[in-house]
Amino acid sequence: MISVIVLGTGNVGTHLISTFLKTNKVTLLQVYSRKKQSLIPFEKNVDTTDCIQHLKEADVYIIAIADDAIANFSSQLKFKDKLVVHTSGSASINALKNNGHKGVFYPLQTFSKKQPVDFKNIPICLETERKGDMQLLKKLANSISERIYTIDSHQRKRLHVAAVFSNNFVNFMYKLANDICDEYHIPFEILQPLILETAQKISTHHPVAIQTGPARRNDTKTINAHLQLLSGQPKEIYQLITQSILKTYGKKL
Amino acid sequence: MISVIVLGTGNVGTHLISTFLKTNKVTLLQVYSRKKQSLIPFEKNVDTTDCIQHLKEADVYIIAIADDAIANFSSQLKFKDKLVVHTSGSASINALKNNGHKGVFYPLQTFSKKQPVDFKNIPICLETERKGDMQLLKKLANSISERIYTIDSHQRKRLHVAAVFSNNFVNFMYKLANDICDEYHIPFEILQPLILETAQKISTHHPVAIQTGPARRNDTKTINAHLQLLSGQPKEIYQLITQSILKTYGKKL
Repeated sequence: MISVIVLGTGNVGTHLISTFLKTNKVTLLQVYSRKKQSLIPFEKNVDTTDCIQHLKEADVYIIAIADDAIANFSSQLKFKDKLVVHTSGSASINALKNNGHKGVFYPLQTFSKKQPVDFKNIPICLETERKGDMQLLKKLANSISERIYTIDSHQRKRLHVAAVFSNNFVNFMYKLANDICDEYHIPFEILQPLILETAQKISTHHPVAIQTGPARRNDTKTINAHLQLLSGQPKEIYQLITQSILKTYGKKL
Repeated sequence: MISVIVLGTGNVGTHLISTFLKTNKVTLLQVYSRKKQSLIPFEKNVDTTDCIQHLKEADVYIIAIADDAIANFSSQLKFKDKLVVHTSGSASINALKNNGHKGVFYPLQTFSKKQPVDFKNIPICLETERKGDMQLLKKLANSISERIYTIDSHQRKRLHVAAVFSNNFVNFMYKLANDICDEYHIPFEILQPLILETAQKISTHHPVAIQTGPARRNDTKTINAHLQLLSGQPKEIYQLITQSILKTYGKKL
């Protein structure tokens, strides 16, 4: 059975720990955090340490810490023939500075500590330097998820940008919609079925095929009426995205 | 029982017709379209006409046609004591130029002709000039949906802008993400669980509370790395939304 140590107890680390504890296909040997206090929630269920020198021998070491800290932290891992992976969407595989084998184990989902997640449907993007390590990493990923992808550092960086558009920026669009609703005493919940339908359609349709709205149909009258109701940055955002939709579909303002 | 005539066989009209035909709480008396050919799919199940003079007497006339055509078309409806409503998100109740009672029956969802919809969960925004008409319209709306809202023309215009942000612009964010994936041979399906999770979270969380990403955590290193990977309008959109997120959360680039 594959043995694993998780290093870091942030959002990603916490969800990985609880997922590994639930499966009997992987042995979670140990959990590391530099803060002793962060280890308290896990002490009952797994061996913990805040000392790098006390790390056990495992097949895979999963580093789930801030991007900026990966290089310095991994350089302290002296195991020669062990696989060390990070979980970052933006950091290259070369951010790892450990002696031994290197890889990436990037679960693409938005995590918050409080909300439980079902890893089964979370895509895990894998990268290794050596073929043999990829087999090991795939086996590990398959033990918790049904969606495994091989994505190299070059692709992963772009995938992270795509994730910013389709998650972070989408959420900000919801925020702007929510602001408008609040200002005019409209319950935001009116928009929820539309929001859900829009997201669900994407699993069966290409976004270009299902684009609707005033910009898509070149409805300048409605566009101008909307612009008159907006000001500041929401207005700028409305203008820029509208222009971009018009351009995509071959029309100009 | 309330009797209804639907005028128009576009996306909204078509879905209303098939929904009214399915319920036994409403009598769909007739369907009107100015194009005879558009009526063919309905002829088997309901009386149809392409002639305004042949319209029957009904309790409610639901106009589901292009915004620009509402004024001219409704001016030809000469029934004195009947309620005529339009289904537009942007047009004011005053766009109606019929002799009798006026109202709005705006189902807020993104419709495509081919995809069946369950009206039960579609919010319907209602407006009338007279209280008695509102009772009638509420009864009609309740016969097909469980989400009924009273929204006046002033609010509805703003709600429509909010819908553009949370549906049309969100779909365009998906499109930009899809472009990046295509360019670097990354399967777009990797992003689908993230997209769905982001949309689902909104039903239980305020968008401000769940904003994540490089702009939210003022991670200028990642922001700059992302900007270097983008060009043209996607880059401008990334910049503007990032600035706006930073401003919202009290940080400056």
